[in-house]
Amino acid sequence: MTPRKPGATREQIERRERFERARRDSLRPAGDAAVVIYGWHAVTAALRNPQRRVRKLMATENAARRLAEEGITVKPEVVRPAAIAERLLPDTVHQGLYLETEALPSPPIEALPAKGTVLVLDQITDPHNVGAIFRSAAAFGATAIVTTQRHSPEATGALAKAASGALELVPLVNVQNLARALEALKAAGFLVVGLDSSGDGDLAALGLRTPLALVLGAEGKGLRQLTKATCDHVARIDLPGAIKSLNVSNAAALALYVAGRQASGA
Amino acid sequence: MTPRKPGATREQIERRERFERARRDSLRPAGDAAVVIYGWHAVTAALRNPQRRVRKLMATENAARRLAEEGITVKPEVVRPAAIAERLLPDTVHQGLYLETEALPSPPIEALPAKGTVLVLDQITDPHNVGAIFRSAAAFGATAIVTTQRHSPEATGALAKAASGALELVPLVNVQNLARALEALKAAGFLVVGLDSSGDGDLAALGLRTPLALVLGAEGKGLRQLTKATCDHVARIDLPGAIKSLNVSNAAALALYVAGRQASGA
Repeated sequence: MTPRKPGATREQIERRERFERARRDSLRPAGDAAVVIYGWHAVTAALRNPQRRVRKLMATENAARRLAEEGITVKPEVVRPAAIAERLLPDTVHQGLYLETEALPSPPIEALPAKGTVLVLDQITDPHNVGAIFRSAAAFGATAIVTTQRHSPEATGALAKAASGALELVPLVNVQNLARALEALKAAGFLVVGLDSSGDGDLAALGLRTPLALVLGAEGKGLRQLTKATCDHVARIDLPGAIKSLNVSNAAALALYVAGRQASGA
Repeated sequence: MTPRKPGATREQIERRERFERARRDSLRPAGDAAVVIYGWHAVTAALRNPQRRVRKLMATENAARRLAEEGITVKPEVVRPAAIAERLLPDTVHQGLYLETEALPSPPIEALPAKGTVLVLDQITDPHNVGAIFRSAAAFGATAIVTTQRHSPEATGALAKAASGALELVPLVNVQNLARALEALKAAGFLVVGLDSSGDGDLAALGLRTPLALVLGAEGKGLRQLTKATCDHVARIDLPGAIKSLNVSNAAALALYVAGRQASGA
């Protein structure tokens, strides 16, 4: 871990400037980048989030009635199911609800409180997997998800559906450079642990503590070289069977479970 | 648990007859029901499985070279990527390999050895989830997956891709009636544990032992009433965060991990 140095080095000044730029960017309205959210859990969670500005809300008659019964006061445009379906890919399960809203602000990495567990995603591109990871993060009480601005899916559509409302609960921190973000977490006191099949030992044997950052790589590719080199430890999840790797959202859920057990002394 | 009764009751005779019918069905060639498998891991695992009869194998030039390097002797029809892409949904990641084969035989439930852990899926319909569950089953050394013939996705396409080769490793047992299958497992000595948010206690506190059957329900709907009533226990996975349920494939991975720890005395 890089210890905090006394006095302001050139690097620290530059980091501070980057932080200020990122903070200003995060406060700028999302402009034209509308986010599409469909499905009961995802839409109702978004409508209950005061940070979400609704641009358009469509609901079938049934769904509109259920919204009112749930005490949600935003009035939808009541439409036939086909009017929603035609805006989505074929066979999308929308449960009668379609929302256009703005992207939530992305807090700067330096604004994260130095507590609990954050998940860091190294270029995981599949929206279903990233959505399921959001859901698990909310289920295990993770404090944030960190991803790169490039090579990551937008927090919309299939990702929002798979997240099942978790986008409203777990802040998404978008960073330009993942290695630099990991350095910032280390400087703030986080133990940074990468998960990779090439890891030195089993995650459950590592002696985890909070604040903790768990870093997950894309399936097939795994963690990038610089990401691995920046982690305090690289661990694997030992598997007794014939296949030696899990779907990345399954690996994330398992890692959160293992970390939670260790933090609680179980 | 239903104890085995001495002598053959009418019910046992009927069960035996059903078993014989199921065994004959399982040995019949799949006929016209071709299975489509694409993607590197899924196709190479299928080609290495002597039980798979290849009907058609297409590969791009690169993929054909890699197949030969891997010592796979089945000769593909070498094609341009577009020839594969046009047979699949848009944006499907096929990695230059496309295989048509026959479905693997489904062993009867009574043929399962009374050891280890089996997963039972109660009408889980999403192929990505079922595929990821196959992959986790292979990773944790589960001995079989039991599903209903109806209301379950076919072991093909997106399911096979998500399974990442696990279809060749974990037998799929198709049953007509899930409650009856659970009774057969109990009669064979399995402890049958359902997972449901309405469960009595945390899975990790239950005192699991093998042979074990873990029963998972569809998202949203959970386990059906008769399924729950047939389980020896219904347990939940306690989650500390704001969302109280996981994606079903994540729940399956976690349940397999918890069961594995208890079986090994950890």
